[in-house]
Parts: sequence; structure tokens; C-alpha cells
Amino acid sequence: MTESEALKMFFDIALEFMVNLGRRALRGTSIAALAMLAGTSVAFADPLPSWNAGAAKSAIEMFVRSVATPGSAQFVPPAERIAVFDNDGTLMAEEPNINLAFALDQVRDDAPAHPEWNNEQPFKAILQNDRAYVAHIGHDDLTKLYLATFAGTDEATFENTARSWLGSARNPILKARYIDLVYQPQIELLHYLRDNGFKVFLVTGGDVDFVRAFAFDLYGIPPWRVVGSSIRFKLMQTQAGPELMRSPTVDSFNIGAAKASNIHLAIGLTPIFAFGNSDDDESMLALTGARRYAHLALILHHDDGKREFAYDMYGSPFTRLDKVLDEAPSMGWQVVSMRNDFNTVFPKPESAAQGK
Amino acid sequence: MTESEALKMFFDIALEFMVNLGRRALRGTSIAALAMLAGTSVAFADPLPSWNAGAAKSAIEMFVRSVATPGSAQFVPPAERIAVFDNDGTLMAEEPNINLAFALDQVRDDAPAHPEWNNEQPFKAILQNDRAYVAHIGHDDLTKLYLATFAGTDEATFENTARSWLGSARNPILKARYIDLVYQPQIELLHYLRDNGFKVFLVTGGDVDFVRAFAFDLYGIPPWRVVGSSIRFKLMQTQAGPELMRSPTVDSFNIGAAKASNIHLAIGLTPIFAFGNSDDDESMLALTGARRYAHLALILHHDDGKREFAYDMYGSPFTRLDKVLDEAPSMGWQVVSMRNDFNTVFPKPESAAQGK
Repeated sequence: MTESEALKMFFDIALEFMVNLGRRALRGTSIAALAMLAGTSVAFADPLPSWNAGAAKSAIEMFVRSVATPGSAQFVPPAERIAVFDNDGTLMAEEPNINLAFALDQVRDDAPAHPEWNNEQPFKAILQNDRAYVAHIGHDDLTKLYLATFAGTDEATFENTARSWLGSARNPILKARYIDLVYQPQIELLHYLRDNGFKVFLVTGGDVDFVRAFAFDLYGIPPWRVVGSSIRFKLMQTQAGPELMRSPTVDSFNIGAAKASNIHLAIGLTPIFAFGNSDDDESMLALTGARRYAHLALILHHDDGKREFAYDMYGSPFTRLDKVLDEAPSMGWQVVSMRNDFNTVFPKPESAAQGK
Repeated sequence: MTESEALKMFFDIALEFMVNLGRRALRGTSIAALAMLAGTSVAFADPLPSWNAGAAKSAIEMFVRSVATPGSAQFVPPAERIAVFDNDGTLMAEEPNINLAFALDQVRDDAPAHPEWNNEQPFKAILQNDRAYVAHIGHDDLTKLYLATFAGTDEATFENTARSWLGSARNPILKARYIDLVYQPQIELLHYLRDNGFKVFLVTGGDVDFVRAFAFDLYGIPPWRVVGSSIRFKLMQTQAGPELMRSPTVDSFNIGAAKASNIHLAIGLTPIFAFGNSDDDESMLALTGARRYAHLALILHHDDGKREFAYDMYGSPFTRLDKVLDEAPSMGWQVVSMRNDFNTVFPKPESAAQGK
């Protein structure tokens, strides 16, 4: 082969490395060097095309540039570039909540085997479609119905059940599959952070295994980068060999103060970037200020009644955003307005599966 | 620049990718292609030179080759190549246990401020150097002394205290620093697994943050790949800003059945490779059999009274190895004999810091 052919082959191999393996830690300088060598030009396109110009977009771009540029006063080594995102209402529409919808459907599916549920809350309300009750379901009820439907299930069955449900379940308000209701600007932000050496973790109040069932396909976030609410598992010997079974014990509700503690448990480093959308994210947002590095915390404000929801009019126990909105100015948290900062909300149908 | 120079520069960049970024997922075919293009030859040296030829070394090599070779009947996609290692007694000498030694030294350091400890167990035994008591210290006592010494400490202070202690603390029996008493064959094994696309997690009964303080320097394992015993953290507002504080609540003792549950919580995938050395690793070893893939579980048997220890003569609550040794044949677990399978136990002093 000629040197020219070898160079071309080399470029292909190097490009494959970048795309498949190295993208997270790749530096802009290396991209430029590769492009130069290949004799092509790289168009430095806007990495956040679905974000409108404004304070939020500027804050993100300035922060990422300042921590990822060697020599910058705010430079942060790649190993410490940790970003955390809430899921429901931050990356994905949350009215109704996807995990709750899944649990409610399981109750309906399992009901024929449980006649006693007709006289027991929260099952009775779910089966009779008592919207007022369901809209204000609390943690005790959630625990009860979650354990009733999934305790004693092995992990593989749970995963299969979740994946099957996700493939078809539709949001009744927005008239689309739940998994198609991710926010396009946030998908771009996940790419942008990873392209600048960040490790991105999902920190959700949802069941960690339920969220794992879609986190990679939708966001490119692998199972070991998902931190969530959890039940305890027990390894049991079955005729088919050892099986991990869901036990009837909740280990952690990953909301409120627990988020900061569980982030530390799972990651061991303090995130320098956090994105949430409710009071349940307060400790996660505040945690970014606990170390010596520059940091950025953002709050998505659902103020777009036309394209999605305006929560001030909506309200639910899952989506309260009072305290962190009040605290934002004094804490230096950046409020993102869905109405003003997102020029697109949901991906166009043909690009919906391109999150990974 | 000439094409030849460009090719050379390209090779350097590609090599940097490999070394810094892509090593974990790199395929043998790509190494060969790169080597060919650069006109250099790759010497296929033994990646496990400190392992003697024998059943254990063969089992490791055959397993890794079979799961990492595309087209092999036992091929496992890189994303699912998860390996878990116990720490104490598996990667590092554990007599005495490094985490316990750290806690005991903290009790001694803090004693002047706590006159009441002279009349209270386990503090009294520690301060009076009552070896018989300390040798059989149990979980309740461990919790008590751990919380007494570290509850209310902020995370950064804890990390600094641990790092400072690790820099000088010496194993009184083996007459070397604890951090120099890692097993050279295991360091090679960690490299070998990562070079074949494995993600390596440390799954330890030790305090997760204590073990994180040395896991990267000794093993190349970053903080977010350490699963351990944990106390709950609380984010507090202090005059210096938000601080993560260690609370007086133990969240999880990561031993026995808890290991399997915590592995699933932290990783979300079933490991296909596990290495332990005591009955506390039983659930972790058994877990490898819970999924559809080929798997390998190994047990390090401390049978080398000359170069390290023979536990049959030694014994302690931390190092019991009865049940898993009995179960090994029926479970298909590979027993590794330190005496026969390790040709070197500890690294030579000048190479001690090369684990990463």
C-alpha cells in the first residue's frame, strides 16, 4: 500500500477510536490535528443548536470552555469533570411520571390475582381510576405498590418487563411514547459535555433499574452511571442457578438530601456540573459548591404551556419547584426557561433514537 | 510536512489515544493493524509474568481470550465485561487489616480528648493494646469506634487524614508500608483485564472512602469504580460553604450477602469475573453465575507461610476461608495457591508505585 493509502487507513482507525472509545476525553486540539492531517476541514458547528442564544447557553459554553481548556485559570483535570443530571423533568417530560405510570400499569396487570386490592389503598384508587388520589400519591403508597408488584421478581424478569413496557407505553397528555419525550436541547448538552471530557451520571428519584432500562438507548448513559432509588437485592439459589431477586426492602429513596449522599457513595467525587428541575434536586445542586473547583448548577423551569407544560398551573407532588427557584439567585444557580432557552423541545420523530 | 512525517505524527496521536483513552476497549486486531502500519513489530510478551504456569494461570488466560475474541462462541461485548475484585487479602496483604489499623491509630490519636474511653470497650482494649480482644473485634465494635472517630468529619478532612496515614503507616508483621504490600501478580492481572476491554471494580468490606484514597494510585481504579462499606453523608452549610459531612449512620456493611446486592446497585450488570479470598466474598463469587455469559470466579488461598501467611495457622474474623473453599469444586470456582501460582508475591521496591 502507498503511504497515502496507509495514511487514509490510519485515519479511519483513529477516527474509529475517537467515535467509539475516546470521545469522552478527546481534546479539541487533537480533533484539529487529525483534521489537518487528513486534509479535511472541520466545521466548528454550534454543538447546542437547539438552545437559543441567551444567558443560559452562554453560561454553559463559558463554563465548559473554562474548565476544559488547558492553561485556563479554571481548568479541571478530566478525571474530575463529573456532571450529574436528574431525569424526570430535566431530561424527559414528567407529566405523568414515567416510573409511576409503569408501576400503575403493573398494578392493573396484576390485579386479577389480587381481589383484596379492591378494598386497599393505593390499589383501590388505581383500579378505580381515582385521579385525585393518584395525583397525590406519597412515598408510603409508592413503596407499597412497588413492593406489591415487584418484590420477589428476579432482576432479568424485571428488566424484560420494563423494556417491554417502554417499547409501547404512551404519555396520555402529550400523545407520544414516553421514551420519545426527551428534550432535544438536553441530548445535545450531554454530547457537548462528553465531547469535553465530562463523565455524565444520571441521578434520579426513579427506581435505578427501571431507569437503567432506557438510560443507554436514550442518553448514552451506561448502567453503572445511573444512581437511583433502590430496593435491596438478594442472591437466591434456584433450579436455573443463582438469581438476583428483588427483596421487599427499600434501601434508598434517592430524593432530597439523599441525592447528595448517594452521589458521593456512587461517584466519590464532587460533581462540578449539575442539572435539576425540582426541590428534590436541591442537595444535588448545592453539592457542586462543596469543592474547590469552578462549578455550574442549572434548573430547568417548565414555563412553556404551549409546547410542554407550565408547572405553576399544573402542580404535582413530583414536580414542586419553589425553594430552589427562590434560592437560585443567592446560590448562583442558572435558571433555564423552557419557553425562552429551548428553540426545540422534543426531537423530530426520525431523530428520536439518536440520543446515544 | 511529508506524508511520512504526517504518518508518524498520526501514529503518535493514535498511540496517545490508545494509551490514555481507549486501552480498555481496544481490540487485538487494531493493535496489530497499527503496529503493521507503523512498521514496528509487537512482541507478544507474557502479560502475567509473575504467575507460574498452572491451572490458575491457564484458566485466566483461556477465559479472557474466549470472551474477548470476536467470533468466539463465548464472546462477551465489551460493555458487559465487568470484573470485580475484593481488596483485603485479594489485592493486598490483610494481616493486619489496613482499614482496622487506620481506625485503631485514630482512636489512639484521639484518646487524649476522650478520658471516658479508658473504661469503655472497644476503646479500652485498643488503648491498653489488648491483642486478644482486638483480634476478634466484631462489627458492633467496629461501628462504634468508626463512628466515634469519624462521625461529623467533613469528607475532605477524612480524605486528607487517610492519605496522610497511608503515606507512612507500616504493617508491623511484614515490616513494610501497607501500600507497598500489594500482590504483584494481581497488579498484572488488573492490567491484563483492562487491556482486554474489562471494566474493573473494587468491591471491598472496607470503608469506601478510605479505600478510594489509595485505589487509583495502587490499582488504577478510580473513585467511581469502588464499592464498599459506607456511612451516610449529609450536606451541611458551613461558613466556608457547603460541606459533605460523615453522619453517625452506617448505610451498608459491604460483606457477605450485601456484596451481591451492592454490586448490582453500583454497576447494574452482573460481573463475569470475580476474585475474592474469604467467605465474605461468597455472594460476589456466586453472582458471576447469575447471567447467561461465560464467567470465571477465583479464590486466593493464603497458603504461603514463608513469603506471606498461611491462614490455616493464622485465623481472624476477617479472613475466614472455610465455606467457599469447600464449595469451590461444585461451584466451579478456581482456587489460586499463593505458594504455587505466584512466582513473585510483592513488587520489588522500585516498581511498587507502578500499579496505576
